[in-house]
Amino acid sequence: AMDGAPPPPSPTGLSVYVAVSQLLGLTLLTTTGVWLGRYRGGVAWHSPLQFNTHPLCMVLGMVFLQGDALLVYRVFRHEAKRSTKVLHALLHGLALVIAVVGIIAVFESHQTKGIPNMYSLHSWCGMAAFVLYLLQWLLGCGFFLFPGASFSLRGQYKPQHVFFGIALFILSITSCLLGITEMLLFKISDSYSHFVPEGILANTLGVLLVAFGLVVGYVLTREEWKRLPLAEELALSMDFKTLTEGESPGGGS
Amino acid sequence: AMDGAPPPPSPTGLSVYVAVSQLLGLTLLTTTGVWLGRYRGGVAWHSPLQFNTHPLCMVLGMVFLQGDALLVYRVFRHEAKRSTKVLHALLHGLALVIAVVGIIAVFESHQTKGIPNMYSLHSWCGMAAFVLYLLQWLLGCGFFLFPGASFSLRGQYKPQHVFFGIALFILSITSCLLGITEMLLFKISDSYSHFVPEGILANTLGVLLVAFGLVVGYVLTREEWKRLPLAEELALSMDFKTLTEGESPGGGS
Repeated sequence: AMDGAPPPPSPTGLSVYVAVSQLLGLTLLTTTGVWLGRYRGGVAWHSPLQFNTHPLCMVLGMVFLQGDALLVYRVFRHEAKRSTKVLHALLHGLALVIAVVGIIAVFESHQTKGIPNMYSLHSWCGMAAFVLYLLQWLLGCGFFLFPGASFSLRGQYKPQHVFFGIALFILSITSCLLGITEMLLFKISDSYSHFVPEGILANTLGVLLVAFGLVVGYVLTREEWKRLPLAEELALSMDFKTLTEGESPGGGS
Repeated sequence: AMDGAPPPPSPTGLSVYVAVSQLLGLTLLTTTGVWLGRYRGGVAWHSPLQFNTHPLCMVLGMVFLQGDALLVYRVFRHEAKRSTKVLHALLHGLALVIAVVGIIAVFESHQTKGIPNMYSLHSWCGMAAFVLYLLQWLLGCGFFLFPGASFSLRGQYKPQHVFFGIALFILSITSCLLGITEMLLFKISDSYSHFVPEGILANTLGVLLVAFGLVVGYVLTREEWKRLPLAEELALSMDFKTLTEGESPGGGS
């Protein structure tokens, strides 16, 4: 890399799957917009439409941006680890901010209409996903972004971070499906069973959310597509390892 | 192993997690039974209660048994691969049979009550999970259980089988949560928001389903807990490899 040689090409299959994931992501955002715009009166803040900000923000933040944040190590596989890590944290941070707006929207809307909060399975799963996602983000910053955590501590936490990252992404998608079901049964309970266009459209949004999760999950878990350390990182990590093991003799990982 | 030496012990953490998964599994079956028995009039076949057979069968087959079928390679890690594989196929087969009973229950119940089928997101996700699960079972039997598929073909299909196995398990759990939400909004829509005991109990069932999926998923994906080939299998697979490569020169995997 130092001598100006071109980086090795990304696996071809990977590019196709990432492209499909982005197509699905944009399609599911559009579908959410069409549902809210065409059938639910649109999206607004200081208005009876404030509730509609909730599904839009959650799909954008907790699904699309969270999913893309998970993909950065596969997509930018030849960039320096540090830059990719910062991008990963920034995308998750942006997802969190948008999710907060979406959560405020539903609480304020309930307040205005006198509807109780946090009684449904959707609210339990969604709130758990959000709180654990925030916690995961704070832990991730603490372990990987700020200095302090030792090389071996990072290595021990990383598999947990990866597992819970994917688990929270899945729980977020599940919460969206629960929200779609709730909204349809609140708004069109009488016509839903007659296959009205709004029901079909919202069901299709659910299927798109599952498909997005499936493609992102496939890209993340495929062994051959995992990011390999760059040549200079390998050399550096060996130096670190030697240093660490030198500091605490006999304290292998 | 041939000389009567004791097999290496299972990783201790693994046993704890498997025990927790089984405790969660039994708790979620009990919770389903209590919900249906105490609040929904119980379970029966030729009766207006036929519908209640549906949630019971789906939780038992598509969640508990499917989850346990996924765990057999971790639990019986020192048994011969062939026996474990047969158990894996049998448990999934039993899960499929029970799921069929559960699906018949809902279709017959809808028929009796004049309710349309397959309009909801729950039905779309659930039916997709069932049909793909059946397909995955048939493919699994074809590739791994019956003779015919070559060593290299099996090796190519296996990662797909594992990925889609976990994905379908997650989709099954998601479908259950959607079903719980539907049932609560159909049956107790007026009192659900007042935190009535039935709502809390059914929400708790949802949380238990998520927890079961989380623990099973953790056991399955933890690298150190994957089943290692037994000594005699390693020797055998080398023989096969040599044979295969001898048959088609230059046709590496």
